[in-house]
Amino acid sequence: MPAPLENPLVRDRDVELLLHEMLDVSALCRLPAFAGHDRETFDMYVASARRLAREVLFPAFKPMDEAPARLEGGRIVAHARMKEIWPRLVELGAISATRPASVGGAALPITVAAMAHAYLMAANASAYGYAGLTNGAAHLLEAFADEPVKRAFMDRLYRGEWTGTMALTEPQAGSSLADVTTKAAPRGDGTYAITGAKIFISGADHDLAANVVNMTLARVEGAPAGIKGISLFAVPREREEHGALVPNDVHVAGVIHKIGWRGLPSLALSFGDQGDCRGWLVGEPHRGLAYMFQMMNEARIMVGLNAASTASVAYHEALAYARMRPQGRPAYAKDPASKQVPILAHADVRRMLLRQKAIVEGSFALLGFASLQADLAEHAAEGAERARARLLVDALTPIAKSFPAEWGFEANALAVQIHGGYGYSSEQLPEAWLREQKLNSIHEGTTGIHGLDLLGRRIVAGGGAALGALGEEIETAARRAEAAGVEGAWIAAVRAASGTLASVTATLGQRGLAGDVEGMLLHSTDFLSLASITVVGWLWLWQASIAKSALARGASGDDIPFYEGKLHAAQYWIATELPKTELLARLCVEAESSYASMRDAAF
Amino acid sequence: MPAPLENPLVRDRDVELLLHEMLDVSALCRLPAFAGHDRETFDMYVASARRLAREVLFPAFKPMDEAPARLEGGRIVAHARMKEIWPRLVELGAISATRPASVGGAALPITVAAMAHAYLMAANASAYGYAGLTNGAAHLLEAFADEPVKRAFMDRLYRGEWTGTMALTEPQAGSSLADVTTKAAPRGDGTYAITGAKIFISGADHDLAANVVNMTLARVEGAPAGIKGISLFAVPREREEHGALVPNDVHVAGVIHKIGWRGLPSLALSFGDQGDCRGWLVGEPHRGLAYMFQMMNEARIMVGLNAASTASVAYHEALAYARMRPQGRPAYAKDPASKQVPILAHADVRRMLLRQKAIVEGSFALLGFASLQADLAEHAAEGAERARARLLVDALTPIAKSFPAEWGFEANALAVQIHGGYGYSSEQLPEAWLREQKLNSIHEGTTGIHGLDLLGRRIVAGGGAALGALGEEIETAARRAEAAGVEGAWIAAVRAASGTLASVTATLGQRGLAGDVEGMLLHSTDFLSLASITVVGWLWLWQASIAKSALARGASGDDIPFYEGKLHAAQYWIATELPKTELLARLCVEAESSYASMRDAAF
Repeated sequence: MPAPLENPLVRDRDVELLLHEMLDVSALCRLPAFAGHDRETFDMYVASARRLAREVLFPAFKPMDEAPARLEGGRIVAHARMKEIWPRLVELGAISATRPASVGGAALPITVAAMAHAYLMAANASAYGYAGLTNGAAHLLEAFADEPVKRAFMDRLYRGEWTGTMALTEPQAGSSLADVTTKAAPRGDGTYAITGAKIFISGADHDLAANVVNMTLARVEGAPAGIKGISLFAVPREREEHGALVPNDVHVAGVIHKIGWRGLPSLALSFGDQGDCRGWLVGEPHRGLAYMFQMMNEARIMVGLNAASTASVAYHEALAYARMRPQGRPAYAKDPASKQVPILAHADVRRMLLRQKAIVEGSFALLGFASLQADLAEHAAEGAERARARLLVDALTPIAKSFPAEWGFEANALAVQIHGGYGYSSEQLPEAWLREQKLNSIHEGTTGIHGLDLLGRRIVAGGGAALGALGEEIETAARRAEAAGVEGAWIAAVRAASGTLASVTATLGQRGLAGDVEGMLLHSTDFLSLASITVVGWLWLWQASIAKSALARGASGDDIPFYEGKLHAAQYWIATELPKTELLARLCVEAESSYASMRDAAF
Repeated sequence: MPAPLENPLVRDRDVELLLHEMLDVSALCRLPAFAGHDRETFDMYVASARRLAREVLFPAFKPMDEAPARLEGGRIVAHARMKEIWPRLVELGAISATRPASVGGAALPITVAAMAHAYLMAANASAYGYAGLTNGAAHLLEAFADEPVKRAFMDRLYRGEWTGTMALTEPQAGSSLADVTTKAAPRGDGTYAITGAKIFISGADHDLAANVVNMTLARVEGAPAGIKGISLFAVPREREEHGALVPNDVHVAGVIHKIGWRGLPSLALSFGDQGDCRGWLVGEPHRGLAYMFQMMNEARIMVGLNAASTASVAYHEALAYARMRPQGRPAYAKDPASKQVPILAHADVRRMLLRQKAIVEGSFALLGFASLQADLAEHAAEGAERARARLLVDALTPIAKSFPAEWGFEANALAVQIHGGYGYSSEQLPEAWLREQKLNSIHEGTTGIHGLDLLGRRIVAGGGAALGALGEEIETAARRAEAAGVEGAWIAAVRAASGTLASVTATLGQRGLAGDVEGMLLHSTDFLSLASITVVGWLWLWQASIAKSALARGASGDDIPFYEGKLHAAQYWIATELPKTELLARLCVEAESSYASMRDAAF
């Protein structure tokens, strides 16, 4: 078996390019929210996360994959390595990095935290998962809970003394949150009696911290049917009584044997089997789903970031393997006694690697840009700028979540393929990352649901303003590319794709307005692909401009091949991926009818 | 958790269509080789295999996946279920089905055996694997060994008393068989002393039968370097001395922990550690690789068949799940109190199912046609017909091997996706089939290697005759479609793709003849995709013609949706997949340079 390879998880130089040369995150320091920061403090946080990822999280990945968290006597026992990791994540500040100092956070931009946390996710998605979920739960409380509920739960979550979960899914409801049936009955003391069952609740039990707070969707008795009758509750595993923690009648009903993310148990929970489970209402009744949705962009960007990171670590493994593994000779070599060449010399291996690179670095650029808009939507000085950023991050979120998940899965499969027979064994890591990746097209909304969300709501938001803002961004990049002397054909191709996206959106939007909602949405996954390829093409054009300018100014040393690599990846994406938008547009516009017009019995 | 679903493994009605309505296998009975058969005996063999697959092999799949064959005291212990299965496979005649009565076979056409064995593969690829490998080893001996070697090994293999393997790959050589270093030194008694190491040898040890015969590539001392110095040996695990089996110094050096096919152990072997390993030369020295290549079409078609079968069983599971699982409401439904609909009602689930169907049934049509050409290449009455069939099966083999593996992997991923969160758990089967499938793009030549083989050798064979014969077949189908009244646009699209394939092949062939072999082969995987999509498009047009005619003649009962399904799948393929050939052709012809022109440091 080949020896383990050096793996950077994420390319440091790429993070530097994204944060500083592309997104200019230091400019955020001019805003009051980030006034305590400068480039140095940003880079310090990235460096700390990177070190923790490489030294602590990554070495624990395979052991945690091989020995999943297990159920013993009704309680989950986490992997021993996780007990070392959790305090280190807390110490880094991974839970509260992006929250203000008032709640104990470091007030970092999401953009900076995202690229720092990418290392943690690439190293060990399960381990980071505990921090990500705890952040999500605490942030929900911060945004919507009243003071006593915040004090009871939020502070301890942000401090990592307890951990949090999102308890949305139910067995009979799955993606259809309108069908949630968990019940909440007022107890007269301000709390609610919770009864019901949830499934796929990640991290809902473990022995890493003293308590777990489940942010739980439930219906208050007499609430209207559908999504307008759902409320949000904090339902701790244990509740405080007289200063001590006592069981809150929340039980682990089963463990899902997931094919990846094995360090983070996914559980079936039951609430109130003994009629003694109490929940604390968060915010107003019946507004639970609205609260959740307000936090969902961040959760979805986090899923996309995980997907990009999982593709990244596999890409770097495959690249290291391809440089090291000798096999065969070039097509023109005739002498069988000549030395074998590293497989990086073979054209098809190069194709597979460049495709991975284009997907991985394209995904990070997408996630970086979307994160920056999230920061601006919250903190920009001008209301108009905040509103525009909000439209952009809303429109980009389904893409930022789904593109890295779908294309990333393909990238992960290519990493297995490059490893050949070794890739098909669990002695090597690529197969594990392929398993990890598959979750990302399913959780936080399946790809199909994000297609519906993008086309049915987000891209047509603001009467076309979202699409308009996106078009402006693409045009800005095109002008920048012209100024940098980037190949005219590339610029024209990106502009054409952007035009196609706009006209397809208009056509489909009109179809919907005319009452043909089914016809509008028939190819919404194809529309999502069309939008994704176009957006990533724009971001590659942008990166190409930076590279072209840097090379023209006289880059040196390792920067030369780094920038050249950006140009090759941009060329690859524009030549081989961008043209696919034409077909996708045709399918959408013509409402290609093969599966719509088919009777069920004909499948 | 949802209850287990009824799964037919492969659709019976589709097998009937392929064998009888499309390929007319009964016509083969006019040939002397198949004179003992008629439609009834063909269908009986299919029915027997189907029953064994459903009743015995499929129920054992999950237990065998969960408890891989293991190494104990230097020997492999197969799963207990496998000990029930092996005699049943022998009894069915799976090892020798396609071989003549003179060696104990049933003299069935490969075409019939393929569709029968598809059920076995869909049910349990590992279990079938023992029979497939034993057939391959025995067939090599039948074709090339002299009489004493045949008597010593072949008879017992065909009778299933012993099993066989293919021992080609070595740790330092992998796909590059030119670099095989296992040594063979003449011992003076007609046998050779074998020393060396092999890896990824499936089924090389187990306790299912009394002995294992490894068909082993090795170099006779003093042989030339490269592929022209490799000989083929039968190297049994135990050899006969004085009527008893004694150890032959073949040792299990390790077990590969494969991510699928876990019932069939993949082993590292060492030969001659104690200087006492004997091999029996098969045929002439230095011709080993040529012998192997003569048998490889069959092995590769078998891999493609396994890939199609693995995609098939997952498709049927996803279809059953989609009919049963209620979730959400149609896009236009406003009443949240209305009943949830089965997910089959959602457009994107329909898209994923129709895509799977098009891939699965398109693959089976491809494998059926290629198998028929293999039968005709061997047994057709006229020399010219045999030669033409040989060209066709040679040209189609890389496609028949790789298309089901690559597109099938995508189909398997869609089956996981349709199962949502449940699909991500090992409580459900789709994730296991996704793991099983990944091997098929790697073993028996990676997809990259098949691209090179198709473009560099097979499609340009016979001075264009292979491509010409393929073009004739496509044109025949186009005329048939015209006669059946199939949509004119579909016919035009298939003709256009066929024309594109021909012109791209000509352009690239000329590039190679002009000395630019690298430029010719730069996009050989894209060329393989182009050829694959076109060929499957042709086969869908053919199936559409059959369906259209049958519906026009007045099909009844379940045949109506069955034939309608064929028309929808043909429409889907032609509208959504066939147009991709334009871009692929452009990449090939323009020799798009992104990854070729990149320096290694820029990845």
